[in-house]
Amino acid sequence: MRIVELTKDTKDNILENLLKRSPNNYGEYEAVVSDILANVKANKDAAVFEYTLKFDKAAINADNILVTQDEIEEAYSVVEPALIDVIRKALVNIEDYHRKQKQYSWFDSTPQGTILGQKVTPLEWVGVYVPGGKAVYPSSVLMNVVPAVVAGVDHIIMTTPPNKEGKVNPVTLVAAKEAGVKEIYKVGGAQAIAALAYGTESIPKVDKIVGPGNIFVALAKKSVYGHVSIDSIAGPSEILVLADETANPRYVAADLLSQAEHDELASSILVTTSRELAEKVSVEVENFVQVLSRKEIIEKSLNNYGYILVAKDMEEAIAVANEIASEHLEIMTKDPYAVMTKIRNAGAIFLGEYSSEPLGDYFAGPNHILPTNGTAKFFSPLSVDDFIKKSSIISYSREALEPIHKDIEQFAKSEQLTAHANSIAVRFETL
Amino acid sequence: MRIVELTKDTKDNILENLLKRSPNNYGEYEAVVSDILANVKANKDAAVFEYTLKFDKAAINADNILVTQDEIEEAYSVVEPALIDVIRKALVNIEDYHRKQKQYSWFDSTPQGTILGQKVTPLEWVGVYVPGGKAVYPSSVLMNVVPAVVAGVDHIIMTTPPNKEGKVNPVTLVAAKEAGVKEIYKVGGAQAIAALAYGTESIPKVDKIVGPGNIFVALAKKSVYGHVSIDSIAGPSEILVLADETANPRYVAADLLSQAEHDELASSILVTTSRELAEKVSVEVENFVQVLSRKEIIEKSLNNYGYILVAKDMEEAIAVANEIASEHLEIMTKDPYAVMTKIRNAGAIFLGEYSSEPLGDYFAGPNHILPTNGTAKFFSPLSVDDFIKKSSIISYSREALEPIHKDIEQFAKSEQLTAHANSIAVRFETL
Repeated sequence: MRIVELTKDTKDNILENLLKRSPNNYGEYEAVVSDILANVKANKDAAVFEYTLKFDKAAINADNILVTQDEIEEAYSVVEPALIDVIRKALVNIEDYHRKQKQYSWFDSTPQGTILGQKVTPLEWVGVYVPGGKAVYPSSVLMNVVPAVVAGVDHIIMTTPPNKEGKVNPVTLVAAKEAGVKEIYKVGGAQAIAALAYGTESIPKVDKIVGPGNIFVALAKKSVYGHVSIDSIAGPSEILVLADETANPRYVAADLLSQAEHDELASSILVTTSRELAEKVSVEVENFVQVLSRKEIIEKSLNNYGYILVAKDMEEAIAVANEIASEHLEIMTKDPYAVMTKIRNAGAIFLGEYSSEPLGDYFAGPNHILPTNGTAKFFSPLSVDDFIKKSSIISYSREALEPIHKDIEQFAKSEQLTAHANSIAVRFETL
Repeated sequence: MRIVELTKDTKDNILENLLKRSPNNYGEYEAVVSDILANVKANKDAAVFEYTLKFDKAAINADNILVTQDEIEEAYSVVEPALIDVIRKALVNIEDYHRKQKQYSWFDSTPQGTILGQKVTPLEWVGVYVPGGKAVYPSSVLMNVVPAVVAGVDHIIMTTPPNKEGKVNPVTLVAAKEAGVKEIYKVGGAQAIAALAYGTESIPKVDKIVGPGNIFVALAKKSVYGHVSIDSIAGPSEILVLADETANPRYVAADLLSQAEHDELASSILVTTSRELAEKVSVEVENFVQVLSRKEIIEKSLNNYGYILVAKDMEEAIAVANEIASEHLEIMTKDPYAVMTKIRNAGAIFLGEYSSEPLGDYFAGPNHILPTNGTAKFFSPLSVDDFIKKSSIISYSREALEPIHKDIEQFAKSEQLTAHANSIAVRFETL
């Protein structure tokens, strides 16, 4: 793995290189996606079935689009019982953590008769997109569905592309059922996003669409944003390890590789104050790569977006970590908590040498759907917050309004909004 | 004002009509906006100055783009002192309310050495857009800036278009200064959004852009979403009044008109169980319209998007209110709190006959930047939440990881992610 001394120039180059992975740079597919959206909006089910035949080679119609109880039972009979057990154990942790995120309605009152507050209401309809293809990620199903369940969403539906026999992967079905999904529709791609955003004869319109997908899915989600809500656009996975001379090079190397294996756009970065550690990690990485099953992907991803950066001190190392704003940040230093207090930007922060990133992907409880590609500067992990919304509550008595009514009228008039002023004045007019 | 009996058909027609106002339907301007964004991204200041000359007829350069201390002082000398007083009184209420929205970092630990938590961090850079033109809304300046200040944002900068003498409206400057803005840049339109999203020599790149604007500003914000964060896309203003036979028709009429005066796309809807009230309100509206200064706008907006709907009972009235998901919802019924419990979708809910909507626009404290055009089904009022983000905290000891390490490895292997499994296994290998 390449070792680079951290300077202003190397930093700027790396930041620019990482941004190349942004889904904002795939404009060439926008026209295709926009056609699919328009077609599904106009022709509903007919368009959905046509695209599913074209892209997934599956003959789906109004009678077989919904996964049946029989198909769910069949899925349970083929998935390894030990895996179902692990899914259930992870689910307990994920539910526990997300329950702590719940926000509650509140109000505050004064004896003059004012009540101000904030009412928290779960979303009514949520659509979860689950990608198809050879890679199946039951962990992502849990991470998308659990916060919606904890928030109290009334209707959580799922869409996922069928294979050419019209079937959905059994592990996806088991994970969905365990997490609490009631309805699963066999449709994928931009056509699934369009169906969820506009509704069809078979698929209900939802208020929010969540879940990762390919570039067509990402562009479709971005395009329907505003008409419905979406989670943030998922980019390629990332890890940044902040380490000093006390870190175990073997652990650091293994953790860097755990992200590099995701895909060729994934990024793995070590920022360290120790050149000795840098060199040892580089060697460990080379050794591990030879024995790992996804060697080809890992090599490409490390060549494209893998770096070992040597910083002159921890302050400089922390500064670059904040600028990169990595999806996953591991801190393996003498005092990881002290370093953590200086971290502004990261999706999830892992502290100490036993907090390896896959622990968070699968088991600890916090969500593994995290802001990528620098968006941890302003976005948060998927959470219960994503499945609620708030309404302000305002209640004034005559006694409370009377002493301020002229102030409000003056403010409104200063903005030339005389009907606003009138709506206050009319309450105090003497007839 | 037209009176319509509420049926499935009238409801569907009204919902369809209201959606015509969506900023999703202005695709014709997308090419213009996308050119402006690309030009500012490539040519930075030079492009910004060129557009400001072209659109605002103002000669702005690197030396005069920033509002000076002298200009602020001049603004204070020309704004009516009584208005400054009202701004300060409103500010106290707005700050009080928003402080109650603050969220805090939390963690939870187990004696096995696990710590899980959520770290709350304010955004570092926020850009507030303030429209120029004849209409000046100091109240919107306060509503955009205060939640960012309360959240603890480090750098809050503002952009607003200059007039052709290169000056910014003094009321805007006073409101910005009072609210706590430190830097104000004289640039407007899509070019301002581009400058905030990408940064120029003069204007810093921000993490999030908030504030209303015209269609060019709205499209530019939507386009840069993902590269930076934005608040929700503002649509035309709306009010829905839910009233029974106990409501004062004069108050209802005045409140409907307070939204109708905003612009021709604004929507004012009364849903009532009382035909007698419907008729009285209609008469009161006609009387008020004659004496209000914005008569022309009001008449157009009522013709386009104004309705008095007569429902057969309160249950039906509430159901349609939830479907419309209005920005502002007033409840004027015998027991407004009982009705409120059944409201799922509204930006702000005003209870009782003294809680007129302009009280919320100017003075009560809750934010007046609210989800419009049905988006209250999934979006929330602008709040302190918009100016913070969260990071998950995960810390495990060897003791805590040991009993579950094989579970995690199995889960990872089931997803064919062997490097993930390896990063856990390496911690327990016997050398």
